[in-house]
Amino acid sequence: MVSANPKIHILPVAGVRWGVAYAGIKSSAEYPSSDLALMELASGSQCAAVFTQNAFCAAPITVAKNKLASIAEQKNSSAIYLLINSGNANAGTGDEGCRAAELSCQLVAESINCDAQQVLPFSTGVIGQSLQVEKIQAVSDALNASLSTDSWPLAAEAIMTTDTVAKGFSRTMGIDGKSVTVSGICKGAGMIRPNMATMLAYVATDAELDSKDLQELLDHVIQCSFNRITVDGDTSTNDACVLAATGQAGIKLDNKHDAWHEFKSMLRLLFVDLATAIIRDAEGASKFITIDVKGGRSSAECLQVAYAVAESPLVKTAFFASDANWGRILAAVGRAGVEHLDVDAIEIYLDHLLICQQGGQASTYDEQQAMKIMGQQDISVTIDLQRGSVDERVWTSDLSLDYVHINADYRS
Amino acid sequence: MVSANPKIHILPVAGVRWGVAYAGIKSSAEYPSSDLALMELASGSQCAAVFTQNAFCAAPITVAKNKLASIAEQKNSSAIYLLINSGNANAGTGDEGCRAAELSCQLVAESINCDAQQVLPFSTGVIGQSLQVEKIQAVSDALNASLSTDSWPLAAEAIMTTDTVAKGFSRTMGIDGKSVTVSGICKGAGMIRPNMATMLAYVATDAELDSKDLQELLDHVIQCSFNRITVDGDTSTNDACVLAATGQAGIKLDNKHDAWHEFKSMLRLLFVDLATAIIRDAEGASKFITIDVKGGRSSAECLQVAYAVAESPLVKTAFFASDANWGRILAAVGRAGVEHLDVDAIEIYLDHLLICQQGGQASTYDEQQAMKIMGQQDISVTIDLQRGSVDERVWTSDLSLDYVHINADYRS
Repeated sequence: MVSANPKIHILPVAGVRWGVAYAGIKSSAEYPSSDLALMELASGSQCAAVFTQNAFCAAPITVAKNKLASIAEQKNSSAIYLLINSGNANAGTGDEGCRAAELSCQLVAESINCDAQQVLPFSTGVIGQSLQVEKIQAVSDALNASLSTDSWPLAAEAIMTTDTVAKGFSRTMGIDGKSVTVSGICKGAGMIRPNMATMLAYVATDAELDSKDLQELLDHVIQCSFNRITVDGDTSTNDACVLAATGQAGIKLDNKHDAWHEFKSMLRLLFVDLATAIIRDAEGASKFITIDVKGGRSSAECLQVAYAVAESPLVKTAFFASDANWGRILAAVGRAGVEHLDVDAIEIYLDHLLICQQGGQASTYDEQQAMKIMGQQDISVTIDLQRGSVDERVWTSDLSLDYVHINADYRS
Repeated sequence: MVSANPKIHILPVAGVRWGVAYAGIKSSAEYPSSDLALMELASGSQCAAVFTQNAFCAAPITVAKNKLASIAEQKNSSAIYLLINSGNANAGTGDEGCRAAELSCQLVAESINCDAQQVLPFSTGVIGQSLQVEKIQAVSDALNASLSTDSWPLAAEAIMTTDTVAKGFSRTMGIDGKSVTVSGICKGAGMIRPNMATMLAYVATDAELDSKDLQELLDHVIQCSFNRITVDGDTSTNDACVLAATGQAGIKLDNKHDAWHEFKSMLRLLFVDLATAIIRDAEGASKFITIDVKGGRSSAECLQVAYAVAESPLVKTAFFASDANWGRILAAVGRAGVEHLDVDAIEIYLDHLLICQQGGQASTYDEQQAMKIMGQQDISVTIDLQRGSVDERVWTSDLSLDYVHINADYRS
C-alpha cells in the first residue's frame, strides 16, 4: 500500500444502517475484524447497481442482479438489505453456488423477519470454494442485532480481503437550506481492472432521486472513477457497485434542479476518492501513478495508450525501482495499437518534466530531475499524442516484489 | 530461466559465416562474451525479414527495412551482411539514432570492402541511449577477420542481453539425395510479445528459394512460433527476424516441389524450437507453460482467451507458487472479452486433469493431483470452449520474484 489510512471517518446517512459480524469465513489469524456486513436501506430507498462484465460472473452477482430487477419491477418500497461476506468469492461454484447465495439471504431474512427477495448477496475472496452457509446462519441474529447508523467504518473493515486499509469517504453540500450527505465504502487491492463496476463499493445519499436518475448518475460517475483504475489488468468475477438514495434529507433531486450539477460533481469526487483509495492500497504497491493521455482523437485511443502503459510489467517494475527508464514508457505507447500514430509528434512528461519528444529523449531532459520524480510516492505521467482534443486519465500502481509475494501466498 | 542449455550445437550452413567481437557496448562485468555479431550471406543468397509492429520502431529497424527493400528492388546478388549489436537498442533515439545506425554500417562496410547498402543494422538492449559508433569502428576489422562458418554458437552468445542461455538449433533433411540444413539463433527474455516478429532471430538454409517464396514461408512459420509467445505482453521496439536461403546445397525448392511441405514443416519446428527457447529462458521464469485453447469459433477468439490467461499476473504468480488456484484461470477466461461465451460449456484442464466444468470445479477434481502438476517445470493448460473447431496454442512463463528483481535492476 502507498499510504496508511489508520482511522477512517465516515458520516452517517439518514436511512442507512450497517451491521457486522464474524462468521469465520475469513481466517481470524489472517484478517482483521469481521467478515460479514449487512447494509440496511430504509423503506422508500432507491437502489442502483453495476456489476462485473466478467463472463464467469460469481453466483451472488447472478442472484443479486435478479433480485434487484424484481424489486424494480414490483415497485416494492420495503427496506432493502445487502448481505456481504469476505473471504470467499462464491465464484466458479456453479449451481451449488447460486443455491448457497439464495440460502444465505433466506437465513438472514428470517432473522430480520423480512421477505428474502429484499436481501441481496455479495461475496469477495477466494474463487472456486464452496460458501459455508451454516457459518452465516450461526451469526445471522447477531448481525441483525448489530445494525447501527454509525457502523460505516466497521463495514469498511468487514469487507476487506488483501486490503491493508479500510476505505471510506463522505461529502456533504447544502441544498435549499438543507444538508445532503453522500458516504461510501469500497474494497479491493488486486484483480483490479473494473469494467463497468469495481470489486465492491457501497455508496448512499440521503437525497431523494428516482431510480432512473440514480442509475444514470451511477453509470456516469463510474466511468471516470472505478472504470479508470487498474492494478493488474485482471477484472474480477465479483465486481459490484451499489448507489442508494434514501430520500431522508427531504431534498428531491432531478436533472432540472439547480443543484443537480453540483451534486453530480460531489458524487464524482467521492467516487474518485474511493477508486483511487483502491490504487493507493494496491497489492504490494509503493507508488501511486496517474496517467494522463492528452490530445487523442477518441476516448478509446487515449484509453488504449493509457492502459498499455499502466499495465506494462516493465513500466511498473521501473516505477518500483524508481528508475527513470522512460524508454519502457515509449515502447508501451508504441505497442498500444493506435493506428497511424506519428511518434515524432508525441510528448511524454514525468510530472512537469518533458522527457521525450521527436521520437527520442527531449533535449532539455535532466536525468537527476527525472530520478528525483521517480523517487516520489505520487507520480504523474502525461502522454500528449497531439492529434486531437480528447483527454483520458487512468490510475495505477507499481509492480513490486511484494505483489508477487502476496499473490504467490494468497490461497495457502 | 527454466532449464540450462550449457553448450549449444548448431550445424554450419553452406554460404553463411558469422564473426563476433567485443566492442564494450555491453558491460563486460555484466554479460558474457561479445556484443557484436556479423552475419555474412554469400553472394546469390535471398533474404526475407519481418520487423516489429511497435509504432516506436528503433532506428536500426527503419534503416534495415529500407536497405532490404533497395536490395530487393535492385535484384543485387552481392553478399549481404547483418550487423548486430547487443547492450544498446538504439531505440527512442530519433534522427541521431538513424545516423548512428547508417554510420556503423558504413564503418563495417569499409573493413569488408563492400557497398554500405549491403550491410543491415540490428540492435538490442537498453532503450533511449545513444549508440557509440566509435566503439564499433574500433573493432570492425577484428569483426570482419573473425568470420567463420563455425561461429553460430559464438553469435548466439554475442546477441544475448538478459538471456541466461544462448539459443540455437539446427535441423536437416534429405531432398533428392542431397542434404538440406536449416540453422537458427535467437535472443530474448523480456519485453516479449512479438507481433509479426520477435526480439532478434536469424535463420538460414542452404536450399535455394526465390525471395517471394522465402518471405511467404517466413510469414507462415512465424505465426505459429514467435507470434505465439508472451513473457510480459510488452512488444519490443527492436523485434526482427531474418530468414535467409543461400542456395548452396544445390536444391531448388518451390511450392510445386515434392519436398515442399516437409521442408515447411521442418522450418516450422525449428522456429518453434527457437521461440519456446525464449520462453524457457524468460526473465525470472521457473515454469514453462503451454496454453491450448480449443473449440473456438475463430483464431482471434482463441488467442484472446489464450493471451488473457497467459498474461494475467494473478495466473502467472499462481504458477510461480505452484498453487492450483484454478479460479484465477477461470476469471481470466471470463474477462477475455469473447462475446456470448457459454461458461457452463467450458472445460479447463491442467495437463490431463479436468479441473473446471459447468462453471465450477469439476466433480472429479483432485487437489493433490492438481498440486503435483503445478509443481512440474512444464505445465500444460487446455481450455476447451466447445463452440467451434478452431484451436490455438500460446506459450508463456510464470511471474516470479526474480522477474521483478531483474526488471527493477536492469538499467542500473
